[in-house]
Amino acid sequence: MEFKVNSKVLEKLLSHIIPAVPNRTPMPILENFLFEINGGVLHVSATDLEIALVSSIDISADEDIKMVIPARLLYDVIRSLGDTQINFETEKNSKLRLSTDNGVYNISFSSPEDFPTIPSVPKEKSIKISGNNLKKAIDQTSFAMSKEDMRPAMTGTLLEFSDEGLRFVATDGHRLVKYINKELQTKEEEQYIIPERAISVLSKLLDEKEVKIYFSKTNISFHIGELEFISRLIGEKYPAYNSVIPLENENEMKIKTAEILSTIKRMNLFSTSSSKQVKFSIDSNKLEVAAEDIDHGSNAKENIECTYSGDPMVIGFNTNYVHDILSHIDNEEIIFKLHSPTKACIIEPVKTNENEELMLLLMPVRLNN
Amino acid sequence: MEFKVNSKVLEKLLSHIIPAVPNRTPMPILENFLFEINGGVLHVSATDLEIALVSSIDISADEDIKMVIPARLLYDVIRSLGDTQINFETEKNSKLRLSTDNGVYNISFSSPEDFPTIPSVPKEKSIKISGNNLKKAIDQTSFAMSKEDMRPAMTGTLLEFSDEGLRFVATDGHRLVKYINKELQTKEEEQYIIPERAISVLSKLLDEKEVKIYFSKTNISFHIGELEFISRLIGEKYPAYNSVIPLENENEMKIKTAEILSTIKRMNLFSTSSSKQVKFSIDSNKLEVAAEDIDHGSNAKENIECTYSGDPMVIGFNTNYVHDILSHIDNEEIIFKLHSPTKACIIEPVKTNENEELMLLLMPVRLNN
Repeated sequence: MEFKVNSKVLEKLLSHIIPAVPNRTPMPILENFLFEINGGVLHVSATDLEIALVSSIDISADEDIKMVIPARLLYDVIRSLGDTQINFETEKNSKLRLSTDNGVYNISFSSPEDFPTIPSVPKEKSIKISGNNLKKAIDQTSFAMSKEDMRPAMTGTLLEFSDEGLRFVATDGHRLVKYINKELQTKEEEQYIIPERAISVLSKLLDEKEVKIYFSKTNISFHIGELEFISRLIGEKYPAYNSVIPLENENEMKIKTAEILSTIKRMNLFSTSSSKQVKFSIDSNKLEVAAEDIDHGSNAKENIECTYSGDPMVIGFNTNYVHDILSHIDNEEIIFKLHSPTKACIIEPVKTNENEELMLLLMPVRLNN
Repeated sequence: MEFKVNSKVLEKLLSHIIPAVPNRTPMPILENFLFEINGGVLHVSATDLEIALVSSIDISADEDIKMVIPARLLYDVIRSLGDTQINFETEKNSKLRLSTDNGVYNISFSSPEDFPTIPSVPKEKSIKISGNNLKKAIDQTSFAMSKEDMRPAMTGTLLEFSDEGLRFVATDGHRLVKYINKELQTKEEEQYIIPERAISVLSKLLDEKEVKIYFSKTNISFHIGELEFISRLIGEKYPAYNSVIPLENENEMKIKTAEILSTIKRMNLFSTSSSKQVKFSIDSNKLEVAAEDIDHGSNAKENIECTYSGDPMVIGFNTNYVHDILSHIDNEEIIFKLHSPTKACIIEPVKTNENEELMLLLMPVRLNN
């Protein structure tokens, strides 16, 4: 078997597939690319059993073959070569021989029998979304996914079809983010939970290119140009998150996002590392933010201008969570919607685009003093 | 005690001093800045007992004071503030009170008794050198310092005064670099060994500003603008490195630096990780470079054009060392000066500036086959 390919073309293809190759795995076969030549098309795929990436290019080969090639070695060699023609040739002793004008490289390949089958997702149920919109939706929500395995559903991001639009939801119990893309309304309600690793790889693959998404009970598949990205779904029921969202938080505080974020960064330096507590004292047009580090005997207090409609209130939060939320809102001004010091607080951007909706929920903490 | 200072001015000052604050230390006092106000000048210093940094700014204070302030906390607070005036005020309970228009920050400070004395280096023996030239000298040599503590002298970089110029030498026994700045010739031969940590901090402090260096038996001091950087010296005898430099390596191979560096990067992927061996087969106008990874059954071979004067020779090297050396030569073409497969090889740039000289020495390895 023999085929030729340009090094830069192959480098681009492999760079799209390599994110699915696990760094550490008890199954060495997963550290390989699957090369499959079929009727003049080279398909390259990789998987870590949770996610998989597949792409292809046209080549002219003299026969069909399937082989398993060490992924990092091949990728590192290809990208260290300049722009050159590479001749691939298989030899009898399971050696793949790459040759260029100046060099010859022999790499051992394995037979493909043990390579796991990449799941195929039927083309029945599908949606189309712009890559930028999908990226925005997952980047604004995914930070709130739970890092703890106790409730597996919460370690992923929920994609929920509804008549309101396509909802993206993530929560770890302390905070919750709901983002709605209103362009994608469907009659039936359906839920799909995408695991954390898939979300983080997907975010890096997305650009302005349109994405076609296919769904099955167990898997989800994203088609981005020539590239297919498949992830297993988390087969659990997502918690009934709507029941924790308060409907009447009548006290609204409007404040500049950059100012409060800057204050929170400093409060983070002054809050005790075990509790990370920060105190908000809200009055008609002034928010006082205070923190104290009891371990180091330091404390801080700042005042920020705000517009507030309700009775004066003192409420505590975890600085890390406030920081996370504020740094994921891309809007000049935000509104804190409050009810009482023990009830969930809603944070929303003042302006949103017509076709989207963003809501962040933050649980308060009990102030100790 | 009370004084005012602009946040950006103080941030710049602290950013110069913070590199001397150790990240981990069994002596918590070292995690502080020493603030010393003396006749309208604020001196800030930090030390990890091996290196120290000192700088100062003019301020208007109502009295003199010495205090020890948590370095990271203060630096993080100051740089998280916008451009603003900060009022510093000491209170009775060992609290330092910082206030701005919008905020108040209280930090505990300690008394300065336990803070180590920063060594002072007498102003007797000194040289002047441009920051860029000093940076070039240490960046071209320091990579070859030994990482092993067996021979402490070799863990540092040698500064050697001579009638030839100021020599910078580093070696780990496998390779050796000698760089000479010919502008700084002195009659007496003298040696100073600067530790690794000092070299790495110093390299980041240098720019086009002129540097004045003072020497004592135990310490070296670099004055860079307002900043003083002091390091202890390694009090050992540097090995007689000249005895290992071969005088007659009559076989010269001239080759393009970028080409051989690019080849070596690929050979690194194909050499057995325990030996890292690479084979050079040199002929009249062709260098063949080959490597084999016996653990993974892969191998590679490349040809590069060269100009070579001697008899054909086969010689082995460690790819990592060749790579290190080649990536520290900023010259289009280099010369390998060889004698035999068991004798040290000299590598030199083809062109050097009038006022400098660079020589790299690399020990060969015995080829196994």
